[in-house]
Amino acid sequence: MRFDSEQRLADDVLERRFTLDGIPGILWMPGAAPAPAPLILLGHPGGLDRMYPRLVARAQACAAQGWAAATIELPWSGDRPPSAAAEEVRAELRRAIQAGERVGEDVVDRLVLPLVDAAVPEWRAALDTLLALPGIGGPAGFAGGVISIGVRLAVVEPRIAAAVLFAGSFVPRAVVEEARRVTVPLLVLLQWDDEGNDRQMALDLFDALGSAEKTLHANMGGHTGVPAFEGDDGNRFFARHLR
Amino acid sequence: MRFDSEQRLADDVLERRFTLDGIPGILWMPGAAPAPAPLILLGHPGGLDRMYPRLVARAQACAAQGWAAATIELPWSGDRPPSAAAEEVRAELRRAIQAGERVGEDVVDRLVLPLVDAAVPEWRAALDTLLALPGIGGPAGFAGGVISIGVRLAVVEPRIAAAVLFAGSFVPRAVVEEARRVTVPLLVLLQWDDEGNDRQMALDLFDALGSAEKTLHANMGGHTGVPAFEGDDGNRFFARHLR
Repeated sequence: MRFDSEQRLADDVLERRFTLDGIPGILWMPGAAPAPAPLILLGHPGGLDRMYPRLVARAQACAAQGWAAATIELPWSGDRPPSAAAEEVRAELRRAIQAGERVGEDVVDRLVLPLVDAAVPEWRAALDTLLALPGIGGPAGFAGGVISIGVRLAVVEPRIAAAVLFAGSFVPRAVVEEARRVTVPLLVLLQWDDEGNDRQMALDLFDALGSAEKTLHANMGGHTGVPAFEGDDGNRFFARHLR
Repeated sequence: MRFDSEQRLADDVLERRFTLDGIPGILWMPGAAPAPAPLILLGHPGGLDRMYPRLVARAQACAAQGWAAATIELPWSGDRPPSAAAEEVRAELRRAIQAGERVGEDVVDRLVLPLVDAAVPEWRAALDTLLALPGIGGPAGFAGGVISIGVRLAVVEPRIAAAVLFAGSFVPRAVVEEARRVTVPLLVLLQWDDEGNDRQMALDLFDALGSAEKTLHANMGGHTGVPAFEGDDGNRFFARHLR
């Protein structure tokens, strides 16, 4: 892990950009933490620069709770090398949505499954490194999307103690099945009129998740319209489970 | 309105039982309110004595926020005169549920629509009287079930500024249509595996509600398994909207 830059933000939060095995990432540390901090992995749809304003706001809310937060770029996104296959299926997806067609299961599978397979080992490697840093003690949570990445992480990674999953992306049938093996407490966020999401599939996924404690919060509006109070609700959820 | 008894509860909450136009009710006042208090009407499925433990807990949580809380008995429930028609359709409902049959729309209509028609004018009359009492200043909220009563109240009663609706009872199609006329902020609670509720109908109702700000909180478990943290969430919801 190489730290590339750092800056001190409002509320004394220390933001450090890093590169890990060639993958860009950002780590945010609370200004003064009395004990080793829990860590929230911030999920996103890819494109750290584009997502930065929302990510830093979420990281600062974590820091206000005394938690560290971190994220890494997704495969084939942002400054990372592109993938011809990923470009092709993204183009198919855009074409289907623009034509007002139902997005086929085959497109969803080819869009999401390779991404999950490539990303999850990277997030686990990031956990290895981040949890070994001074000031970070775990436990760890995952918050955000891509929801299929969050589901796989929750299944395979025992250090994820709880997750806030944003149901804002298409979900392969195979991931709905995989969701039955999740056992950690979950808060699932759904935007009821999300233009880039299949509401019924999100409800099916919520139903399938195997966790004994899972809560769905559905709000009005589109993909980017999650109300500010859901940030507070997510922090209260993590405060109950990250001990 | 006649006050029949009063007792001082923990946290200095004053509980007063009353009778209004022959209808039993309970009013809970916070011990020390600096200004006239908002009022939360506590909905329930009927049978004040049976529901008392849960109602008083909710009222004490309201009082902790500085709010008054009140409830009245439903028509044909508890100590109020029974209705042969209501008894008959309740028996039909029990028989269908015990037989594992889908509850017919006709049964739901005959069960719920007369109840809504009879109850809502009574809750409005209670509001007239309660809001005129010293120490209560409004605005008012409605919290609980029967959800069809909450929907009708939210449509016809301009003094209801926000509502926490418990989707825990069968909903007539006509009420789903009526729900489109609701405009106040809503928090809708759904128990995902509620044996006495139709999940899809609850989701259809949530979808139909006309409010620009509406949030669905779905949790695991049966009818009586609403997690304790939802009480806190409901109070935060009212704190945002009852000003």
